[in-house]
Amino acid sequence: MSMFPPVNPLVEEVAQLARERFAGRAARYDTYSSFPFENYRDLHEAGLLGLTVPAEYGGPGVDPLTYVLCLVEIAKGCPATALTFNMHANVIINIDQLADAEQKGRYFREVLEEGKLFATVMSEPDSSFRDRFVLRTAFQPAGDGSYHVSGVKHFCSLGDAADRYFVSGLLEGTATAQEGIMVALVPRSEAGITLERRWNAAGMRGTTSHSIRYDTQVGAQDILGEPGQLLTIELSGFALGYAATYLGVAEAAYDFIREHAKTRTIAPATEPMSHNPLVQRSLGEMSAQLRAARLMLCEAATIRASEQKGGDRTALSLATNQAKYLAAEAGVRVTEQAMRLAGGSGFLKDLPLERWHRDALAGPVMPPSNDRCLEIIGRMVCGLRAATLEFQ
Amino acid sequence: MSMFPPVNPLVEEVAQLARERFAGRAARYDTYSSFPFENYRDLHEAGLLGLTVPAEYGGPGVDPLTYVLCLVEIAKGCPATALTFNMHANVIINIDQLADAEQKGRYFREVLEEGKLFATVMSEPDSSFRDRFVLRTAFQPAGDGSYHVSGVKHFCSLGDAADRYFVSGLLEGTATAQEGIMVALVPRSEAGITLERRWNAAGMRGTTSHSIRYDTQVGAQDILGEPGQLLTIELSGFALGYAATYLGVAEAAYDFIREHAKTRTIAPATEPMSHNPLVQRSLGEMSAQLRAARLMLCEAATIRASEQKGGDRTALSLATNQAKYLAAEAGVRVTEQAMRLAGGSGFLKDLPLERWHRDALAGPVMPPSNDRCLEIIGRMVCGLRAATLEFQ
Amino acid sequence: MSMFPPVNPLVEEVAQLARERFAGRAARYDTYSSFPFENYRDLHEAGLLGLTVPAEYGGPGVDPLTYVLCLVEIAKGCPATALTFNMHANVIINIDQLADAEQKGRYFREVLEEGKLFATVMSEPDSSFRDRFVLRTAFQPAGDGSYHVSGVKHFCSLGDAADRYFVSGLLEGTATAQEGIMVALVPRSEAGITLERRWNAAGMRGTTSHSIRYDTQVGAQDILGEPGQLLTIELSGFALGYAATYLGVAEAAYDFIREHAKTRTIAPATEPMSHNPLVQRSLGEMSAQLRAARLMLCEAATIRASEQKGGDRTALSLATNQAKYLAAEAGVRVTEQAMRLAGGSGFLKDLPLERWHRDALAGPVMPPSNDRCLEIIGRMVCGLRAATLEFQ
Amino acid sequence: MSMFPPVNPLVEEVAQLARERFAGRAARYDTYSSFPFENYRDLHEAGLLGLTVPAEYGGPGVDPLTYVLCLVEIAKGCPATALTFNMHANVIINIDQLADAEQKGRYFREVLEEGKLFATVMSEPDSSFRDRFVLRTAFQPAGDGSYHVSGVKHFCSLGDAADRYFVSGLLEGTATAQEGIMVALVPRSEAGITLERRWNAAGMRGTTSHSIRYDTQVGAQDILGEPGQLLTIELSGFALGYAATYLGVAEAAYDFIREHAKTRTIAPATEPMSHNPLVQRSLGEMSAQLRAARLMLCEAATIRASEQKGGDRTALSLATNQAKYLAAEAGVRVTEQAMRLAGGSGFLKDLPLERWHRDALAGPVMPPSNDRCLEIIGRMVCGLRAATLEFQ
Repeated sequence: MSMFPPVNPLVEEVAQLARERFAGRAARYDTYSSFPFENYRDLHEAGLLGLTVPAEYGGPGVDPLTYVLCLVEIAKGCPATALTFNMHANVIINIDQLADAEQKGRYFREVLEEGKLFATVMSEPDSSFRDRFVLRTAFQPAGDGSYHVSGVKHFCSLGDAADRYFVSGLLEGTATAQEGIMVALVPRSEAGITLERRWNAAGMRGTTSHSIRYDTQVGAQDILGEPGQLLTIELSGFALGYAATYLGVAEAAYDFIREHAKTRTIAPATEPMSHNPLVQRSLGEMSAQLRAARLMLCEAATIRASEQKGGDRTALSLATNQAKYLAAEAGVRVTEQAMRLAGGSGFLKDLPLERWHRDALAGPVMPPSNDRCLEIIGRMVCGLRAATLEFQ
Repeated sequence: MSMFPPVNPLVEEVAQLARERFAGRAARYDTYSSFPFENYRDLHEAGLLGLTVPAEYGGPGVDPLTYVLCLVEIAKGCPATALTFNMHANVIINIDQLADAEQKGRYFREVLEEGKLFATVMSEPDSSFRDRFVLRTAFQPAGDGSYHVSGVKHFCSLGDAADRYFVSGLLEGTATAQEGIMVALVPRSEAGITLERRWNAAGMRGTTSHSIRYDTQVGAQDILGEPGQLLTIELSGFALGYAATYLGVAEAAYDFIREHAKTRTIAPATEPMSHNPLVQRSLGEMSAQLRAARLMLCEAATIRASEQKGGDRTALSLATNQAKYLAAEAGVRVTEQAMRLAGGSGFLKDLPLERWHRDALAGPVMPPSNDRCLEIIGRMVCGLRAATLEFQ
Repeated sequence: MSMFPPVNPLVEEVAQLARERFAGRAARYDTYSSFPFENYRDLHEAGLLGLTVPAEYGGPGVDPLTYVLCLVEIAKGCPATALTFNMHANVIINIDQLADAEQKGRYFREVLEEGKLFATVMSEPDSSFRDRFVLRTAFQPAGDGSYHVSGVKHFCSLGDAADRYFVSGLLEGTATAQEGIMVALVPRSEAGITLERRWNAAGMRGTTSHSIRYDTQVGAQDILGEPGQLLTIELSGFALGYAATYLGVAEAAYDFIREHAKTRTIAPATEPMSHNPLVQRSLGEMSAQLRAARLMLCEAATIRASEQKGGDRTALSLATNQAKYLAAEAGVRVTEQAMRLAGGSGFLKDLPLERWHRDALAGPVMPPSNDRCLEIIGRMVCGLRAATLEFQ
Repeated sequence: MSMFPPVNPLVEEVAQLARERFAGRAARYDTYSSFPFENYRDLHEAGLLGLTVPAEYGGPGVDPLTYVLCLVEIAKGCPATALTFNMHANVIINIDQLADAEQKGRYFREVLEEGKLFATVMSEPDSSFRDRFVLRTAFQPAGDGSYHVSGVKHFCSLGDAADRYFVSGLLEGTATAQEGIMVALVPRSEAGITLERRWNAAGMRGTTSHSIRYDTQVGAQDILGEPGQLLTIELSGFALGYAATYLGVAEAAYDFIREHAKTRTIAPATEPMSHNPLVQRSLGEMSAQLRAARLMLCEAATIRASEQKGGDRTALSLATNQAKYLAAEAGVRVTEQAMRLAGGSGFLKDLPLERWHRDALAGPVMPPSNDRCLEIIGRMVCGLRAATLEFQ
């Protein structure tokens, strides 16, 4: 017995998919920086694409703990799939918080029945989530509740593979995000959506997080909620999912190198590497760091479940930032340590270790960046106001 | 809601005692390296001295989680009390595992009714728990089931404040600990117990962990179990208690420096230190590290509870070594970071920070030393045989 | 051959004194927090008290490299002596920069002939060198070029053992340190100098760095230079000396534990600890860190020598902050690592390791604190204005 | 003035080549994992290909310090060029130590006049330099002083771009490397040299370090020295060159991010990133670590110069292992920190930071791996026998 609650069988189902299908494809998505369409097809066929769609709309509506545990497993097979899936799954959650019943019904059907993918786009050039974010994308009223949306967004995970984009911008004539931030769920099929720059990155290459320019008309039916409302809803789900993703990457590297150590004998030794005290020590460090990070992730997810029933949003934010910080650090450290343990081979693309390390490098800079996580935690424990996301 | 199970009210009772009584005395015990008799009197009066005495013998028989949480609170008030209490409490547990009913009744009555304290002595000169331990203390049969016990023991926590010593040694004529390790619960009042060297250490000074020479006769009524039996029982309770103790020390330092940061303004700043981003960052790191260590401690205690009902001893050993490693590292790091944050003042004995750091320095070297924890973990995760305590 | 220039024989002379005289006394000064008078008597007798008195005034006037190497050796014997000696030696340097010929002759004679000790006092309550320093000590003109000096100073190394105090304060009626900072070399024998609080600290206990209240008259003959002049002279000598001191502490711990490892065998091993790969690794880390820190110290001292002949003050400040940062970190890390390697014994006062660690803990917080060193370096390498010492 | 000796103008010449020619090509070599032929053509044209060819054979015969400083500069422009150049340059040094006058004349002419490149191949499958190396490549006498050489070599830097391979193996019928290790300088043009596996690695992709199978006849004119002689010559030049290479990579990343911080302003800030205290702190850390590593590199090179005149080989080995360890660690840490400072952009291939980090990852595992460096240092400082390269 352990503190971990019993695990939903769904998690093992996802794990099996990740092991048997995703893992074998991951190197290819990385090499070609191509979107993991096959994995998403599998997820759709397994009925997992709407994991976060509420039961009342026909989805599995899984609890946060099951959600993050599934994500960890996806990440072990294919980190880019986990990262993009987390975007998609949290857009679904945001829709549930912002949209009206008609919209929810429509959008969730798209996901459950048609296998549609939703992306969220927020980052903009020359602005940073490190500090207050300066939103430059503009929503200009165009009659009948429709808007003209224009702006450039960076790091658009899912890139041109998304069917809809969760685009945020500022209502023309308003001065602050509190007052005027707006959200549209723009279909990719619209005119006026152009790819500005292809994603070409160190890792997480399958996320195809291109830069996209929006200069498009959005009808009233795709505007979500009221101006300013986005800032009133709970948004920490993204960060929690990043924690799960990078923990998964780290655990994959650890599982691999542990197996490597158990089975590989290097002359003149006659026993496997695992018999070497220096190797044991290194595995011991990784193991302790990973288990602590996993406990923290589960703790944050448990608090999230409670928050959804009216619990404490501050407690959730604190735990989420702690989980994200610990998981992203574990991601970088464990993948690097695993590469070192494997010696020269760990540097070769024959082994997946170097790919996982490249993927893990994204962890500490994804919002909230680890620097910012620490600042938020520090502020919260001192009773100062702190928000994961702040706008100017 | 959180993963942490609901807390036994006993924990708050202990915390109050620690805050209101122990905390104010801790500096004095440190200065004079004197045993915290007053704290033990308070514990006895509060009925807490037999915390681990089973209910069937009239004690509270608390579960492992409640036990470690109590210990964390004691450590926040007085680390030396926590460390010695953990010795005493685990001897009680060992007695329960080794002794016969008559002995249990007699010894537990001594604790519950007379407030007697039990010490455990194991370390010996020039031998180390880092590797296989070479036991030199000898048990020589002296007729009628009595033995002559002779040897020198180091690091005897509770020192001359103990009423009984849980002394281990090797039965004369046996070659291995597996075959011949014996245990006696020697009363201090016996002749032939002499203090070889007074404890004079960097920290944990109130533990009075003297070196003691035993050259004494022990009657059959104080011999526990059969030769070799000690190596068959579960012994990880000591290490789990060390984890709790050093986590408590670290949390005390963190609580103190956080309060310091919230209330102290240093010219030319006009706001408290907590408004400084560098201070926030540092508090953020401490906070995340501590929460992870606390989760790990609770996880190990939860597994221990399950093990006592026939659970998995390997899982317990793994979790305990992880918890001990993380807590002891957190102890050293957090107390040092807290001192730095306090600047020059943190170096003065006016603040408790430097004392806590000195106490924390014992953490990584207490058995299993952190180096050994990592080795044990590394071996276990690779499926190799590993034991916290190994004898030659 | 190495990059290190040939070493002045003076360094070996000092080293011998430190080994043969200071080392044996260090534990006592630590225990009683008493000033190392005997060491200073030895230094005076050896003609070393005026190490930094220029040759034209009859002193050895050693170059900066010889100076820091001497200081490293003193620190290996007695860290508190090194730290206080560095104060004294730098006051002498400051006198040489600020005073007139008559004063120099008089003060330097006091040192060379009478063995007088000079302290410098700067820290004040509730102000910090982390940021701009707010000077509250006041110099009030009292006729005939004399002043009434009043204020409280903290961390007055040498405490009541100093014969003169280098006291800084603000000239009444001036608003900024640039305009009005003044310096007096106040004799301890004056009325109006009272000990506010005795030094009672974690380490460096022999420095007797008491808090002292000044409420005293200072004659014109003991006022150094013009108002504001202090801020125009090169002041990095203190920090460079701290680097030397903490490097010395770290090297002492390393030398000790290396010898320990070479000579101590722990059962069941049959060879000394130095044969253990984990011990080798740990010694290897210490050794590399120490050598890098020593090279950086020598580099900074070499630049200092050049600056004194009209070289680059920015280069000096950069190198000094780098040296101070690296040495103070090495001090804390190496002493802690040495304690761990020694196991339980390293925690006992029988070995000097725990004392050295306590001494080393002062390193990172001494001005410029390591946090501030990094900020200064960061600013300088980006071409931003940076000063080790800033006043409001 | 500084401890660094005056720099040979050659270093600036190389630096210019690296900045103006190599830097612009580096991304391409990385993308296609293609050998930097253009860079080598430039080096040959500049008369730099024989940098280590002794003056008596018409080369520049530069001293070790000039050599490593040149290599640092090459690495700043193109790390793969630096790494392969170091192989080539050290083979030249080895030839000078092993070959007869006729061979030297012939081989060095090939380099100086024809621009030929020499590779060294040593690694073999399932053997490791971490421990004693088990050499399986065989030299079988084939009459007239010629040999049949057969075996597989891994990590053959320069791959199929080399004109000659410095191949080591064991003379048939001998039992130990001490007795029978042999070396041939095999021309690539020979039959029986086949590429077993193309190099496809995380970084240092331009080194084309393929796996190559040798099953070829080598004439007496290409056999270097006597059996066993290789183990009697000084071989630390390779490791020193790795130190220079990885220091260069780290310095490149640091220079880049510093410039980035000085020039890039991120909304809502109105001043460049360099004004942010957290950025300053991070740059400060990098700067101090790099300067220390550079001093250590220069120190090791200085000792090497002295060793060549009959100095101390132990001192050289110690310093080289310290330099290699510090530089390789700095490589990984500084490139990672630079990526983090750049935020999301640092993860993109638009900036060179992620490429440098991938290159740097090879540092700690190249022989002697950093783990082994520490062990060697630890052994040497304890007076135990230690060799960078050990054979069974």
